[in-house]
Amino acid sequence: MTRHDGPLDQLIRALAALPGLGPRSARRIALLLLTNREKLLNPLIHALEQTAEHIRNCETCGNLDMITPCRICRDTTRSYRTICIVSGIADLCAVERTGAYKGQYHILGGVLSALDGIGPDDLRIASLLERVRPGDVDEVILALSATVDGQSTAHYLTDKLQDVTDVKITRLAHGVPVGGQLDYLDDGTIVTALKSRAVL
Amino acid sequence: MTRHDGPLDQLIRALAALPGLGPRSARRIALLLLTNREKLLNPLIHALEQTAEHIRNCETCGNLDMITPCRICRDTTRSYRTICIVSGIADLCAVERTGAYKGQYHILGGVLSALDGIGPDDLRIASLLERVRPGDVDEVILALSATVDGQSTAHYLTDKLQDVTDVKITRLAHGVPVGGQLDYLDDGTIVTALKSRAVL
Repeated sequence: MTRHDGPLDQLIRALAALPGLGPRSARRIALLLLTNREKLLNPLIHALEQTAEHIRNCETCGNLDMITPCRICRDTTRSYRTICIVSGIADLCAVERTGAYKGQYHILGGVLSALDGIGPDDLRIASLLERVRPGDVDEVILALSATVDGQSTAHYLTDKLQDVTDVKITRLAHGVPVGGQLDYLDDGTIVTALKSRAVL
Repeated sequence: MTRHDGPLDQLIRALAALPGLGPRSARRIALLLLTNREKLLNPLIHALEQTAEHIRNCETCGNLDMITPCRICRDTTRSYRTICIVSGIADLCAVERTGAYKGQYHILGGVLSALDGIGPDDLRIASLLERVRPGDVDEVILALSATVDGQSTAHYLTDKLQDVTDVKITRLAHGVPVGGQLDYLDDGTIVTALKSRAVL
């Protein structure tokens, strides 16, 4: 038996649809929002509205920004001769956080997945080939997750890219994570790290 | 180094301020909202606005509803001679979910806490005494958490209530939770359950 109907119920359902939140945490958040209108509810509404109004996808790389092309695509201090392919914006943020990469990005919008029914036409592959074809790009870095879907996407992209251009195609190194303990690692990682061992 | 400024950053901060969410889950939610505007972002904005506009606190019990007095306070099929005192609306929902209680509620808005600086004036105690004083109430049930703060609040309320009325004051039973395993229970609960043992 539930006590509340109407707006509060709708809010709880809308919150529970977000990743990481279930009905209980959604209810807890909804009640806290309503008891802290000035400090929590109104700023959240304002931030959501502002975001909905001003943030859009970059036409070039697919990143989210207030302008299109986005600030990364406009940044002339970054190399335009390297394109890093990532699955989504969260991965772009992860690479950007390191500060170690100074090229351009291309966001696929996911990875190929037979289980989830995501095929090549659902990803931003055509626009990637358009960007690479003219020959202005020296290197394409496939920064995709080391999962089955991520790696099959990488293979598919390699084939497609090699059809249209002779650009250098690289992928992130596989191996022991920095700070990782050997005995907690899966066998696949250890085998890969052994095969790709580096000379000291 | 963070890539986004402006609205998206504000949204991530507003989301990260909610209970159970940190900066990472807030970013994940914000990006998902922006890639699912029709299905997630717009319904959430709508639900928040509707809630902010229509939901208010009941003047009598403190519950949240679209009308005041709220539907529980208006419900003439419920007994007006029993008042169940709860700390917050989440606790009211928990009691209501059971369907086992058919009286009225009074929401304190928290419990006394020296650590958090919450004193008697911060809780809805004065309005509780107003409700109980006329003598229309037979029983007050203290449905507060079995924590130190909850129990000291219960003692304080018992003293205050006994000053103004001779109403019967009860509290929820303490003991082994239904389905609970003895060897996982803390000693305090087992001692209480032993002391309050029931004849079969």
